[in-house]
Amino acid sequence: MARKKVDLKKNALGRLVPTVVNGKKQVPYKGVDAYVAKGCQATPPISSAANYPGNGDKRVKSLADALDLCGLADGMTLSTHHHFRNGDLVGNLLLDTAAKMGKRDLMWFPSASFPCHEPVIRHMEKGVVHHIEGSMNGPLGDYCTDGKMRGLGVLRSHGGRWQAIQDGEVHVDIAVIAAPCADSFGNANGVNGPAACGSLNFALADSLYADKVIVVTDHLVPFPAVPWQIQGNHVDAVVVVDKVGDPSKIVSGTTEITKSPDRLLLAELVASFVRDAGILRDGFSFQAGAGGTALAFAIYLKEMMKRAGVKARFIRGGSTKYLVEMLNEGLTDYILDGQTFDLDGVASMRDNPRHVATSPFTSYNYHGKGFFGTMVDAVVLGATEVDVNFNANVVTHSDGRLLHGIGGWQNCLFAGCTILAVPAVRDRIPVIVDEVTTLTGPGELIDVVVTERGIAINPRRHDLLDAVKGKHLPVRDIRDIQREVYQMCGGAPKPPQRGSEVAAAVKWVDGTVIDSVWTVAK
Amino acid sequence: MARKKVDLKKNALGRLVPTVVNGKKQVPYKGVDAYVAKGCQATPPISSAANYPGNGDKRVKSLADALDLCGLADGMTLSTHHHFRNGDLVGNLLLDTAAKMGKRDLMWFPSASFPCHEPVIRHMEKGVVHHIEGSMNGPLGDYCTDGKMRGLGVLRSHGGRWQAIQDGEVHVDIAVIAAPCADSFGNANGVNGPAACGSLNFALADSLYADKVIVVTDHLVPFPAVPWQIQGNHVDAVVVVDKVGDPSKIVSGTTEITKSPDRLLLAELVASFVRDAGILRDGFSFQAGAGGTALAFAIYLKEMMKRAGVKARFIRGGSTKYLVEMLNEGLTDYILDGQTFDLDGVASMRDNPRHVATSPFTSYNYHGKGFFGTMVDAVVLGATEVDVNFNANVVTHSDGRLLHGIGGWQNCLFAGCTILAVPAVRDRIPVIVDEVTTLTGPGELIDVVVTERGIAINPRRHDLLDAVKGKHLPVRDIRDIQREVYQMCGGAPKPPQRGSEVAAAVKWVDGTVIDSVWTVAK
Repeated sequence: MARKKVDLKKNALGRLVPTVVNGKKQVPYKGVDAYVAKGCQATPPISSAANYPGNGDKRVKSLADALDLCGLADGMTLSTHHHFRNGDLVGNLLLDTAAKMGKRDLMWFPSASFPCHEPVIRHMEKGVVHHIEGSMNGPLGDYCTDGKMRGLGVLRSHGGRWQAIQDGEVHVDIAVIAAPCADSFGNANGVNGPAACGSLNFALADSLYADKVIVVTDHLVPFPAVPWQIQGNHVDAVVVVDKVGDPSKIVSGTTEITKSPDRLLLAELVASFVRDAGILRDGFSFQAGAGGTALAFAIYLKEMMKRAGVKARFIRGGSTKYLVEMLNEGLTDYILDGQTFDLDGVASMRDNPRHVATSPFTSYNYHGKGFFGTMVDAVVLGATEVDVNFNANVVTHSDGRLLHGIGGWQNCLFAGCTILAVPAVRDRIPVIVDEVTTLTGPGELIDVVVTERGIAINPRRHDLLDAVKGKHLPVRDIRDIQREVYQMCGGAPKPPQRGSEVAAAVKWVDGTVIDSVWTVAK
Repeated sequence: MARKKVDLKKNALGRLVPTVVNGKKQVPYKGVDAYVAKGCQATPPISSAANYPGNGDKRVKSLADALDLCGLADGMTLSTHHHFRNGDLVGNLLLDTAAKMGKRDLMWFPSASFPCHEPVIRHMEKGVVHHIEGSMNGPLGDYCTDGKMRGLGVLRSHGGRWQAIQDGEVHVDIAVIAAPCADSFGNANGVNGPAACGSLNFALADSLYADKVIVVTDHLVPFPAVPWQIQGNHVDAVVVVDKVGDPSKIVSGTTEITKSPDRLLLAELVASFVRDAGILRDGFSFQAGAGGTALAFAIYLKEMMKRAGVKARFIRGGSTKYLVEMLNEGLTDYILDGQTFDLDGVASMRDNPRHVATSPFTSYNYHGKGFFGTMVDAVVLGATEVDVNFNANVVTHSDGRLLHGIGGWQNCLFAGCTILAVPAVRDRIPVIVDEVTTLTGPGELIDVVVTERGIAINPRRHDLLDAVKGKHLPVRDIRDIQREVYQMCGGAPKPPQRGSEVAAAVKWVDGTVIDSVWTVAK
């Protein structure tokens, strides 16, 4: 399973990146806005209604029949979405079916993979799957950093995945879209049915650009399935199965706010910063994820908004019951939501027209005529590491192992004020370092690093430094915080046991390669 | 202004059609489902957020500035939509502005034009506009049949217009989208603002495939304008003007049901047919337009549904207050709506999630993987003429003059049961003829012709003939009805004073040419 040697080149950030990835020539990262793409978008084949059932009923008996109808062949690229997260049942069903059909050398192109997809390792070992391009959370990431995958991993942000499909960098042969609700024509949504997950928009690009599209559902309704987040007019076949996802793992039902005093302090500091820097004002907007700290931040911010009598124009989800409460209490005009993280989010998206499903196209695609991400006033993100120049890592830990996908993280960096909320120390390992293991986001886009030990503002942001003067916030130089933590932990984290090979390429939002993930010696 | 001689060829219906239209090679009509397109869709240029304002504000001072920014040049194709119908102010503003900018030989590509666009004749006479492709209602149609346009007119159905753009047959250089509501990023909708017209989906293909897109609005709201029927991610510039349309002409506010006893009888006969043929059953669907007869039909049908205790799964709009009442009374699960014909329709589309805006893509595009039109159980349409083989004309009258666009008419013919509701006589001219002046829809797709003098069922539809046996409907042979009317009117209508030149090509839903409209000697 030896791979061809990959030629490397230094990019504008001084990172060594492969010049060819899985047979395709790459452009090394040139700068945040420096690479301006040319050319035309990918162009799907022209279909004809003459080739589809006159009564609109596209059901076939099994996924194998559907794949057969769609011409599944060795070496094809098959895509799935990750709206079911760790409760997905269709990714494995797809690759198991392809294996039973005797297919080989497939490229799996999920919008993200999770620990539940560990069985795909067997398909890679047996040659059914050649490699994976997409976020690899957990065991698949581990497999990749062990250097066992035949091709390179390719990590893309949500917006970068849209860009890659739209621009033809990745050609999806067959998209398989798991749908909590669908009709026999292929219209599908995620807001109804036992496996309701909210939106299906991580599969939207796949539905638009793939040669063939299969909808797999466990909840068939008479035409029309409304809303049609996926339009049946893009769909070739519909398969009804018993279960597309495990609802208990799709959404947790309850989302836990952190109970750690350090994290609560961190969350409160972030909210105070947003208030004191003057970002918290009528008509403002913010985005925070679903982690414990982010949730706590939203709750602190909510109280500050109430006290200040301030209403947001929109909040960007990942939505949770806490954001839904803010919408219902009139603290925001809209939730613009990429994915729902709990059942309150799903119900709100289904029932409240002000809880609007967004797509990676609207929110994140750098190769559109702008994207929503730039219109968010403040975004609160996490990171595994951040360096003294504000460059950050979100995909590996300091041991070099690939553990997380990029998600919308890179795309969110374009917000008015990008705040990384990170503990200064994680498992006795300093988080602020001299150089990040994998550079996922350039420091010039990261404005503030908030730790429980103080707030570091990027020196490029004079405006923010001016805004917080005299506001009694613990603003510190990032190197001061680093020094303090290094003293506490006994110096810099141990460098990873880096192997000699590139395991995965990390893409920037414009399709260029921003860094490499290296194999790690065990 | 002499035009090049056009080579003609007989198509599968025996109609002489041009082999080249406005410099582009044509495929003559081959049969309803006989021509299966190959190749790939049109491919818009890749954009980059690097070229758009970081704060998302794309406003420019004037339409001239926007056109300048978008590189307006001689010979370009400019598109507009017709959701404002005869109240549109932006089509004329666009061409007036282009004229002031000294541009020449433009192709205007509206989704339809109306009598309010008569000033475009002046632009054609002065050379600003070379020709129009799109429905020409009224004076522009007249100008076209007079043979005065430098290029050929091209008539397409709503679905055919999508198909032509999607397949790259028409390349739109700049789309100018009049929007009743928009934000400065370019998100736009038709449900809010003083010129609210419902949906903007006749401009959707333009927004997706045009090189450049300009949104013109008179009602700017803070980001985000929700719903984003037009996505700002496709938009290059936003222009704010005083008024995009005249609300009193966009929708009438009241929609008049016919008072003519003949037309009421016709409407009742159609409803009775739908009931007695067994189409009226739980979960059925229908579509009827906004004409007086169609409205009366819907009201008769509503009463029959109530009496039978039957509920529709969906009704296809053009919506009116009558359809909205049916939705609100629980007589249908959904209205799937291409355009709203009155203010009740607009309000319902804005406020009721079961009143769903559709697009020409979902409803009508023959070059998709199926389209909604095939799933409608019964559609009630009009026609200017129908021949004894059930072929019908909807664009010219028996005098040969071009007066109407195709609208969704051709696309609707694919419904389960296509019913033409036509008076047997119109202004003392028989409507059932030996051969239609312009063949817009092939008889094999037209199942029933209902006149006040009887119901003619297409002999191909044994099932319908069987279904109505013994149901006391006045079912007659189409030639019987024709004969009776000819006797009454003194024979066949006078044939048109056909000129020697083709004035316009009429496209079938697959892009082939189904017939020609000929110049008419005055």
